Amino acid sequence: MNRIINDPDLVVEDAVRGYLKAHRDLVRPTTNPRVIRHHLAPQQGKVGVVTGGGSGHEPAFLGYVGDGMIDAVAIGEIFSSPTAKSFHDAFVAADGGRGVACLYGNYAGDNMNVKLAVKKAASHDLTVKTVVANDDVPSAPKSERDKRRGVAGEILMWKVGGARAAEGADLDEVIASAQKAIDATRSIGIGLSPCIIPAVGKPNFSIENGMMEVGIGHHGEPGVEVAPVRPAKEMADLMLDHILPDLPFGRGDDLAVLVSGLGATPVMELYILYDRLSEVLEDRGMTVVHPFIGNYFTSLEMMGVTLTVMRLDGELARLVGAPARSVGLTRIPS
Amino acid sequence: MNRIINDPDLVVEDAVRGYLKAHRDLVRPTTNPRVIRHHLAPQQGKVGVVTGGGSGHEPAFLGYVGDGMIDAVAIGEIFSSPTAKSFHDAFVAADGGRGVACLYGNYAGDNMNVKLAVKKAASHDLTVKTVVANDDVPSAPKSERDKRRGVAGEILMWKVGGARAAEGADLDEVIASAQKAIDATRSIGIGLSPCIIPAVGKPNFSIENGMMEVGIGHHGEPGVEVAPVRPAKEMADLMLDHILPDLPFGRGDDLAVLVSGLGATPVMELYILYDRLSEVLEDRGMTVVHPFIGNYFTSLEMMGVTLTVMRLDGELARLVGAPARSVGLTRIPS
Repeated sequence: MNRIINDPDLVVEDAVRGYLKAHRDLVRPTTNPRVIRHHLAPQQGKVGVVTGGGSGHEPAFLGYVGDGMIDAVAIGEIFSSPTAKSFHDAFVAADGGRGVACLYGNYAGDNMNVKLAVKKAASHDLTVKTVVANDDVPSAPKSERDKRRGVAGEILMWKVGGARAAEGADLDEVIASAQKAIDATRSIGIGLSPCIIPAVGKPNFSIENGMMEVGIGHHGEPGVEVAPVRPAKEMADLMLDHILPDLPFGRGDDLAVLVSGLGATPVMELYILYDRLSEVLEDRGMTVVHPFIGNYFTSLEMMGVTLTVMRLDGELARLVGAPARSVGLTRIPS
Repeated sequence: MNRIINDPDLVVEDAVRGYLKAHRDLVRPTTNPRVIRHHLAPQQGKVGVVTGGGSGHEPAFLGYVGDGMIDAVAIGEIFSSPTAKSFHDAFVAADGGRGVACLYGNYAGDNMNVKLAVKKAASHDLTVKTVVANDDVPSAPKSERDKRRGVAGEILMWKVGGARAAEGADLDEVIASAQKAIDATRSIGIGLSPCIIPAVGKPNFSIENGMMEVGIGHHGEPGVEVAPVRPAKEMADLMLDHILPDLPFGRGDDLAVLVSGLGATPVMELYILYDRLSEVLEDRGMTVVHPFIGNYFTSLEMMGVTLTVMRLDGELARLVGAPARSVGLTRIPS
């Protein structure tokens, strides 16, 4: 295992320490070593925006703490939920007196720990409301959308919720916008190689050479189909075939499109995929208003890609395009 | 080979087309399909800043076209120099009437093609002056610094040159600042895995499992030592031992530090490395004023990392910290 680590059991500690040193202009530590806050948090009079999740997905989750984005983040072990205590401490770190919006992904551990943390917060009169991202289409049928996982659509949900909070909206408004954002968003991933958690030392799932796993999850959760690797154009078509009918997206829609590498895929290949995605969407009468191409939500050194598409109304277009400054996503309106 | 491509011989065409579609707010095509320009270039009255290099290093080189950075870029095949014609066409695309600064890396093909392009530009009264980056310490002894390769230090050179041009400096001033930037910059890489050029279909060099190549080049050029993989702390110490004495850097220095993954290395590991780098530099009385951690200059899906350190005087600190907006590097002064 050729990796840049010290003790495999301390990779999260070591990385978080380095992160705090590297981004003093954006973030601060808290008394909980697994919670990082915005350097100005809590901002009095602003709704606090919190997320959290397992490590190994960098720049998610901690890389989205920043201006117009997240106020505090709870950090889990690699591919594991943060503790209830960490979620709770993140709520406290983000609380500026107008309540906290916790915008997170639909995983069993996160659901359980967020619920406990919200209850604890309520016991000392801190109001926390939640939105659970469930944008991953292949993980459950549309009729059971509440069982779907949250994947890279979370980033657009944070962008929308963060921008709405920065505008001065109240807690219910922030929650409504974030919920609208994820309701208008669909994602799918294709895995091309497994990854290795340092403390495990070997892949926790396998993808054979020459094969791709369509619908793979961010932790290697099985997809809906294992098939021979196809040309990028066919991958793009396949991904769109899965997600466009699900919302459904259609002629006249304005879109945000986020293409994220899973870690090891060369950046140029994300653009090769986007070239086709953009062509098909345009041919079908849709307009990509906000494209995001890069490594936004990774899974260690997995090869592969995720596609996220959001249908924009006027409010979502404004909030996705609003100014933001964070390690993972920065927008300067041009 | 599990990759997201169409025809292996057309990966650059396909990726550039996708790039142009994704970043219409930043870039425009030119009549040469291997030259991309800033959406406002040429800007009358501003010195044009040009670079160019092989593909496969994304976001380098095209990702640094942007505000306060590069005005036009010449794009080569994977790991190959752009043609002389492409460099020349990039000069023309960037020329706003005050001359062009071509800031590129020290490779045989680039040197030859830039020289031809500069000559051709002179024949129609377009003045182009050059700075050649040679920041890669292990590629030649200090006494033969002109033989050293240019690596990720190029990014800081572009940042400085681009910011100086944006300030309204004349060509000689832009060249002087960019030259000062690269003269104050030293880099080293450690390779942990090879990469595969799609059109070749197999690795063009090898690194055995459990081994690392210290001083590796961006195209797999041999380093100075092949050794068993060590803990991240020892990698950090080893890298600093190579580059700090070379300038030399010392107590009281203000620094820009750029840690770039080579492609497949998980982002959290870059922070694990930075944690130690930062500790050692601080212990030795130096201050990291401008840290950059991320995938700034990659080599397809190679695993590994490069470290670049620049000693800042007042001018370099100001120019590195100046506002910029590009896919590879965006700075909003906080």
